[in-house]
Amino acid sequence: MTTKTTTTATNNLPSWVESANDATCDFPIQNLPLGIFRRRGSGDEPRVAVAIGDQVLDVQACVEARILPDLSPEAACALSATTLNGFMAQGRACWAGTRAALTRLLAADTPTLRDDPALRDRCLVSMTDADMLLPATIGDYTDFYASVHHATNVGSMFRPDNPLLPNYKHLPVGYHGRSSSIVPSGTPVRRPHGQLRPDDAAPPVFGPSRLLDYEMEMAVFVGPGNDQGGRVAMSDALDHIFGMVILNDWSARDVQKWEYQPLGPFNAKNFATTVSPWVVTLDALEPYRVGAPPRGPDDPPVLEYLQPAGNAAYDITVEVYLASQQMRDAGTEPVRLSRGNFTDMYWTVAQMLVHHASTGCNLRPGDLLASGTVSGPTEESRGSMLELSWRGQNPIELPDGTQRTFLADGDEVTFRAFCEKPGAPRIGFGDCRGVILPAV
Amino acid sequence: MTTKTTTTATNNLPSWVESANDATCDFPIQNLPLGIFRRRGSGDEPRVAVAIGDQVLDVQACVEARILPDLSPEAACALSATTLNGFMAQGRACWAGTRAALTRLLAADTPTLRDDPALRDRCLVSMTDADMLLPATIGDYTDFYASVHHATNVGSMFRPDNPLLPNYKHLPVGYHGRSSSIVPSGTPVRRPHGQLRPDDAAPPVFGPSRLLDYEMEMAVFVGPGNDQGGRVAMSDALDHIFGMVILNDWSARDVQKWEYQPLGPFNAKNFATTVSPWVVTLDALEPYRVGAPPRGPDDPPVLEYLQPAGNAAYDITVEVYLASQQMRDAGTEPVRLSRGNFTDMYWTVAQMLVHHASTGCNLRPGDLLASGTVSGPTEESRGSMLELSWRGQNPIELPDGTQRTFLADGDEVTFRAFCEKPGAPRIGFGDCRGVILPAV
Repeated sequence: MTTKTTTTATNNLPSWVESANDATCDFPIQNLPLGIFRRRGSGDEPRVAVAIGDQVLDVQACVEARILPDLSPEAACALSATTLNGFMAQGRACWAGTRAALTRLLAADTPTLRDDPALRDRCLVSMTDADMLLPATIGDYTDFYASVHHATNVGSMFRPDNPLLPNYKHLPVGYHGRSSSIVPSGTPVRRPHGQLRPDDAAPPVFGPSRLLDYEMEMAVFVGPGNDQGGRVAMSDALDHIFGMVILNDWSARDVQKWEYQPLGPFNAKNFATTVSPWVVTLDALEPYRVGAPPRGPDDPPVLEYLQPAGNAAYDITVEVYLASQQMRDAGTEPVRLSRGNFTDMYWTVAQMLVHHASTGCNLRPGDLLASGTVSGPTEESRGSMLELSWRGQNPIELPDGTQRTFLADGDEVTFRAFCEKPGAPRIGFGDCRGVILPAV
Repeated sequence: MTTKTTTTATNNLPSWVESANDATCDFPIQNLPLGIFRRRGSGDEPRVAVAIGDQVLDVQACVEARILPDLSPEAACALSATTLNGFMAQGRACWAGTRAALTRLLAADTPTLRDDPALRDRCLVSMTDADMLLPATIGDYTDFYASVHHATNVGSMFRPDNPLLPNYKHLPVGYHGRSSSIVPSGTPVRRPHGQLRPDDAAPPVFGPSRLLDYEMEMAVFVGPGNDQGGRVAMSDALDHIFGMVILNDWSARDVQKWEYQPLGPFNAKNFATTVSPWVVTLDALEPYRVGAPPRGPDDPPVLEYLQPAGNAAYDITVEVYLASQQMRDAGTEPVRLSRGNFTDMYWTVAQMLVHHASTGCNLRPGDLLASGTVSGPTEESRGSMLELSWRGQNPIELPDGTQRTFLADGDEVTFRAFCEKPGAPRIGFGDCRGVILPAV
């Protein structure tokens, strides 16, 4: 790490962590996403971290060194934990105060850490020396289905006569997912076995999935929850959201096709779900908050409890990259399979959260609500291989000369997401990555 | 509480806790189910408890008083916790050792507690002075659909041309449920709002559910888990199960009908799920372990990974009782609505667990797997009002002169479950109970 310590230079720089000032960096001082890390190879307890440039700020070390004097006692306590659940529970005012305190500490003209190499050594860790863990203990994980383009694409493959079901434009369709198998980015994913029926005229078999897929999704971590039996108003919805990550809803399509009726996906999606480790707060995303796309003239009106109360869509570019084992061995760059935008969703995260709690279902800090596959209206913006290859009909050509309709063993899938516009800082999410291991 | 302290009397009695020796008691010394309790009105931390007759044994108090000398250090530590998760993780040998130690302490001829009134005061609490809490922190809750009678009944209402889907007899259909809203018996249940479409020709509305129902289920708590990416063999399945409780999968049928396609039930079932507080161990149920009912001649063969490895069905009678507010006000006894048996399920709990883990999904200690509605082949054994009233066509007459097709505000629903046969002790589960509060 290089630090600028001359007054002239720092006055022109937002942070003294120079890598954070690169215009292509995901983690400028305006981002400050939170995560949980452990120094690589150490047996340390997990600690709260903030990303800044290519560095990890050890927040607990900063609290212990008393270099965050503006931090509230509640925040200091919640940030000295092994998960972010306690901090997520604190709510907006606490998060904003913490953001301000961290911004001051990392600002170019604040000498506290900048000019104290010993203290910097205790509080800053290079990202290459940090193992990122799950940000929170995820009590419940819910997956929505909020892209009408994805729902229409998939529906037209499985139910050509009836692609979009009658409820779709009236409520954000969702289902409960499996929280035990959520893993942080970088964790390899074992190709699952499952019960499949490749030949409709023959009995089902049990064996490795042949149609393994990814789903590019965004997901929010719940902040303060709601009491069981209570509901959340649309005007309060964003106060219940701490921040956002990228999510890969790995899916065994052959298992899914055979099992999913009448109760929905189960084993097809419960073997692994990957999340990016840095939770980007809604405060950091604020410059990119926009109105939801207007409904079409034929779309039904939205019921009152789901009526938007202000902007709650987020202008986030999402990208999917793939690198086969052969490509990585040859040093070939990953190939981009798709690029879409999170504003293309039919339902906003605020609507998903409000609908979820509308029966009195209690949401808890650290619960995770995923959006469903982010697919847009164009072919380029399809967020799953099922859609890109149109159920295997249109194979995808890779730079190594091979083709894909679904994932092969050794394939590494990387999702990226970021916000960019003129006059505003780039806010990135980092990577959400996983390699497919062969079935055992 | 009355205790027998004369040698003559105790030698003829299995336990010196006299209420445990009543042949109609759910909790004889052969049962010893575990739970988590707090002394009513105290601000104590929750503690591990064992039910004996009409008493609650405070296990941590016994550990602290060193009156369980045969207990392993691991068991002593795991039993001095605020949930049963740690004890559930220990596995069969530890559970059996603990059961033996508790049996000795409570046996009629063991004087340690029997003859020490001061110690008894510290270690025994009347059930009427104990608040029962959830037995464990439930990481993930899964609900199956294992009664072919229930699946056929419901299927024939919603899909008359296609009641039982092709996958049903090949795999135990299940879905992920909501763990945050699981509550212990006795917690009132608020009638949920939800999005409904009572008139198919008109747009949906948001309002209180009009078709609120219960589902009588049994559920198992997972003991030691399996690693992500690993599977569980049928021969090991029961070693991964700690014990069993009664479960009420409260269901808003109107919400369910409108929302459930294509991803399954979501808001219709996420507002509340009630469990009985005492976890009956598989060791206690051992005398009632039987073979699963034979498959019909037209049923397909079971794939090898789900082939039974020994008996894994349990002969448990299940009963549903209802008392309206008016009945309770008039002192009328609850009316029994149904009686069935858990052996009528098409899939065993062992098969459910093995199928669940078959993709490499990691199960964790304290995870809860519910069976789905326990309905048998007869009308009397239908485990939901949807089935009893056949979707409202056949109203149920109550002793207070009113009728029900679904639940009314003020209705108290009580599930009971027990095992009985000549020559074996009665093993009961206690109550799983909830009152419907009006929507707000």
